[in-house]
Amino acid sequence: MTEPEKTVRALYDALAAGDRPALEGLLDPGFTGQATEGLPHGLGGTHAGADAMIDDFWWAIGRHYRVRAEPAEFLPLADGGLVVLGRYTGTAREGGRPLDAAFAHVLTFAADGRVTGLRQYTDSARWAASLGSHEDRSTPAGRRELRVVRYDVTDGLATIELDRPEAGGAIDPTMVEDLDEATFRATHDPAVRAVLIRGTGRSLSVGGDLAYFTRHADDIPARLRGIIDRYHVTLDRLATLDAPVVCAVHGALAGGGLGLAHVSDVVIAADDAKFAVGYGAIGLASDGANTWYLPRLVGMRRAQEMFLLNSVLTGREALDAGLVTEVVPAAELAARAQEVATTLAAGPTRAFGHIKRLLLTSQDTDLADQLAEETRHMTASGATDDAREGITAFVERRRPDFRGR
Amino acid sequence: MTEPEKTVRALYDALAAGDRPALEGLLDPGFTGQATEGLPHGLGGTHAGADAMIDDFWWAIGRHYRVRAEPAEFLPLADGGLVVLGRYTGTAREGGRPLDAAFAHVLTFAADGRVTGLRQYTDSARWAASLGSHEDRSTPAGRRELRVVRYDVTDGLATIELDRPEAGGAIDPTMVEDLDEATFRATHDPAVRAVLIRGTGRSLSVGGDLAYFTRHADDIPARLRGIIDRYHVTLDRLATLDAPVVCAVHGALAGGGLGLAHVSDVVIAADDAKFAVGYGAIGLASDGANTWYLPRLVGMRRAQEMFLLNSVLTGREALDAGLVTEVVPAAELAARAQEVATTLAAGPTRAFGHIKRLLLTSQDTDLADQLAEETRHMTASGATDDAREGITAFVERRRPDFRGR
Amino acid sequence: MTEPEKTVRALYDALAAGDRPALEGLLDPGFTGQATEGLPHGLGGTHAGADAMIDDFWWAIGRHYRVRAEPAEFLPLADGGLVVLGRYTGTAREGGRPLDAAFAHVLTFAADGRVTGLRQYTDSARWAASLGSHEDRSTPAGRRELRVVRYDVTDGLATIELDRPEAGGAIDPTMVEDLDEATFRATHDPAVRAVLIRGTGRSLSVGGDLAYFTRHADDIPARLRGIIDRYHVTLDRLATLDAPVVCAVHGALAGGGLGLAHVSDVVIAADDAKFAVGYGAIGLASDGANTWYLPRLVGMRRAQEMFLLNSVLTGREALDAGLVTEVVPAAELAARAQEVATTLAAGPTRAFGHIKRLLLTSQDTDLADQLAEETRHMTASGATDDAREGITAFVERRRPDFRGR
Repeated sequence: MTEPEKTVRALYDALAAGDRPALEGLLDPGFTGQATEGLPHGLGGTHAGADAMIDDFWWAIGRHYRVRAEPAEFLPLADGGLVVLGRYTGTAREGGRPLDAAFAHVLTFAADGRVTGLRQYTDSARWAASLGSHEDRSTPAGRRELRVVRYDVTDGLATIELDRPEAGGAIDPTMVEDLDEATFRATHDPAVRAVLIRGTGRSLSVGGDLAYFTRHADDIPARLRGIIDRYHVTLDRLATLDAPVVCAVHGALAGGGLGLAHVSDVVIAADDAKFAVGYGAIGLASDGANTWYLPRLVGMRRAQEMFLLNSVLTGREALDAGLVTEVVPAAELAARAQEVATTLAAGPTRAFGHIKRLLLTSQDTDLADQLAEETRHMTASGATDDAREGITAFVERRRPDFRGR
Repeated sequence: MTEPEKTVRALYDALAAGDRPALEGLLDPGFTGQATEGLPHGLGGTHAGADAMIDDFWWAIGRHYRVRAEPAEFLPLADGGLVVLGRYTGTAREGGRPLDAAFAHVLTFAADGRVTGLRQYTDSARWAASLGSHEDRSTPAGRRELRVVRYDVTDGLATIELDRPEAGGAIDPTMVEDLDEATFRATHDPAVRAVLIRGTGRSLSVGGDLAYFTRHADDIPARLRGIIDRYHVTLDRLATLDAPVVCAVHGALAGGGLGLAHVSDVVIAADDAKFAVGYGAIGLASDGANTWYLPRLVGMRRAQEMFLLNSVLTGREALDAGLVTEVVPAAELAARAQEVATTLAAGPTRAFGHIKRLLLTSQDTDLADQLAEETRHMTASGATDDAREGITAFVERRRPDFRGR
Repeated sequence: MTEPEKTVRALYDALAAGDRPALEGLLDPGFTGQATEGLPHGLGGTHAGADAMIDDFWWAIGRHYRVRAEPAEFLPLADGGLVVLGRYTGTAREGGRPLDAAFAHVLTFAADGRVTGLRQYTDSARWAASLGSHEDRSTPAGRRELRVVRYDVTDGLATIELDRPEAGGAIDPTMVEDLDEATFRATHDPAVRAVLIRGTGRSLSVGGDLAYFTRHADDIPARLRGIIDRYHVTLDRLATLDAPVVCAVHGALAGGGLGLAHVSDVVIAADDAKFAVGYGAIGLASDGANTWYLPRLVGMRRAQEMFLLNSVLTGREALDAGLVTEVVPAAELAARAQEVATTLAAGPTRAFGHIKRLLLTSQDTDLADQLAEETRHMTASGATDDAREGITAFVERRRPDFRGR
């Protein structure tokens, strides 16, 4: 066993034992820890010095979780450093939900063998999920204050309005927190039978907030991860909600912001809207489910063109390409989106939920499995009050009165 | 163990032992059983009273299968009832084919603890498959009388004509039985080298027969399941047949009826045809493989529009959207479909079969696996008489004379 | 156990033991062996006589591999022959890489029970992979002479030019060897930041060389396999390369040749280009990943039309259908393709690689998995020099200077 590996094994043992003196002996006076940005309870980010690392990170973890870091592989680096791969396993103290998250630790060492740095990479969404959504803050999810998103429910229609006009609806930590809160509310309110997503200012969303990343230019991967982990929870939630989602697109919709349209069931665009991914221009890959939806919506060739050649689609082109459902003059956008969303809010919500799940599932099933899925969902939908009403109304040649159950 | 669970475990033991007195002691005098509608041998439907349940259901099962209900999970219901999840496993007495089908039993209890009701949910297609196709009736499959479908084979071309003009080709139990019979014949006749599906009256098929469901308004889920289980066998059979399938669409093609076009290889539509799913308007989900094919054929946005906003496509729109292969004036539909089907019936049938399987497989493989699949199918097609003839004819600049082998 | 099975088990035992006298006793004087054409080291093809089979095939295998043929199933044929299914397992002597390849052996017997013929079907790509790429020849891969392909790297752009004008760029064994060599070079050269594929003569590639197959009309399956195995390695390599690939299509692009366009990221076509699969006309199935890409690029209906009805697309139709990225007048093709490829060669190569992998992966993932993949790739791209440069340049409103790392 190499010296660095011995040192690091001693470190994990000291952590498991809660042995502060041992930890202090293993860390260099100039130690710096960099924790995954998106961790809940403010655990993420930089912790300068052994005391800060112990008090604000390791002991803080212990206050919220019963968890153990279990190293599995030790990979020596050419510069004398060490990468350790393993898993965190345990439970959240509040609620007792299990935590199981992979980690990579990158460690550096002083000449005397002590640890000078630890960079932690872990799946912060797992840590948050273990707490239940949002339990990482004093106010429970569903009752938090919204800052850059407005939320309203009227007659079964939940409206989620991105309201950060000075930044073009750009996505920063506050925006993903507010979207998380708003979609949490919509998901847990049984009165919600449709959702409308729209924005204020000149654009629905220009995507990730590049000014924010420039302010943290030495920490881009962790900052990206912190935002994306949370944003992807929002997208997954909208994609799997029973209630249909309508998205009204005005101005620019770019980068990860496109995900809001992708996961919607009906997308109404203003004719002067602009759609672009933009990652290639700044040397990044993709988020917001763009690589999953774009090939399916606009075809592989146009998706490649958007990603590699930075092509921009107008509202009309987006319609022709299959990215949006409908294009209207900009002045009519708000009214038309409202009209469609209101109609959907009066529909058979449970059947819509079955349809949404079937359309999502169908993307990676074979025909035989999907036929079986349809049989199951169709039979389930046939047992709803709305199905009985729908079939009866059809035969009686009258409009059905759906109640969403 | 709760009392209901004890009672129900005793019930499964009595069934396994064939112990009638024990069964009679466990069932309430007012017992009612509701079996999955689509079960073969008339096992499905309501059985009122313990004697009816034992004689017409449990003992009747025993006459056709050696099977055991194996409970795996007991889930108590809030109202005192019990859901049991498990599997039926065994074999069919005739033919000895294995049976393995999941079940859910929903049981209700009287105040004295006896069982008052049992609702059975199981995969009736598995039960039918165990018997071999159609062996549930006195006449063997392939020689049954057709009532609402006409079937003919001429020069290698099998024509399947939906002939229920008074109901717009609506799909009811008789229609699915006849489609099953006709596609069984086409599948098992080596002379068949192409299939043509068409209809009489004003429409190819308006989809599920809503009048039938209205007549059985208190039993919609079971009735849906009975029809869908059998209809999906027909669709799967057409999708996996070597011989290419041509579908001629006139009038309306809606709901599950669309499946007939989806699984076809060439779809010719009259210009005045109308395509719609229609489920949302009556509070249902989807069947007929609509959720698998529509996103792949017309794209996700248009599929969502059809499902959630009840949009209707004309023949021309269906062509532009990718739902059909070709549109012709209504007066020319029959001749054009016949012409295409006749051409295909003179093609290299085995190679067509390889192509059909590859196109189906490709929908849920990754690139590397599909490359391997192609290597296998291409090599196999290269070993056919038709390949030798095709390559030779090409080099000799003459038309190949394919024999379908 | 039948006599043929006994004989063949003795044969496998003699092979495992390296027992030449036993082998000679088991083989008929008129023995002929037919080995899978594409096997490396010249092992493939016909071996006439027991000595040739032993020396040039079995012992030759032994010189390159430690391998054992493990029969698993013996299937008697109606004509007295025997099919044996099993696996070759072992390692390559050079490099020690594992070999695990399925086989089918078809054996025929003389009246006295001795073996008169053995046809071997196995996955020759596995055999080649076990050797590492190209290690089957004296010159190592990357330094072989090119005959029908030209290769050049200038300013980070690798150009691969099919140069077999007298045969319309047809794909024969020499062409697949040269494409293998050229794509090997592009893949292993860190200076390559984009690839341009183009052709000389009247057509980019008319597909498989039918004249070659006609010359080997009694050995078509093995000849097909030998070419396809190697060609598919080339396609897989281009599809998974970090550097973007541009394909310039002029004249005909047909059959397996279409694969070169399919795996490219940007396809520029001359307006007078013609696209067709052509397999149906000669009784074959598909190769070149046509069945994977065509449904995804042009939709299922048009793919079926191309395969079953031999439809041909012009450059313009190919654009409308989604098969190509852009169409230009024939006279402008070379310049435009060069321009696009040059632009891509100055892009963020690592981020492009992440995007390419994400777009490929997304074809058979579900949404949740793809969201996780995006998080991982996005974070990784955020750690590149090019990302830092890209974000900084964006905020500073200047053009980024990407270095491809």
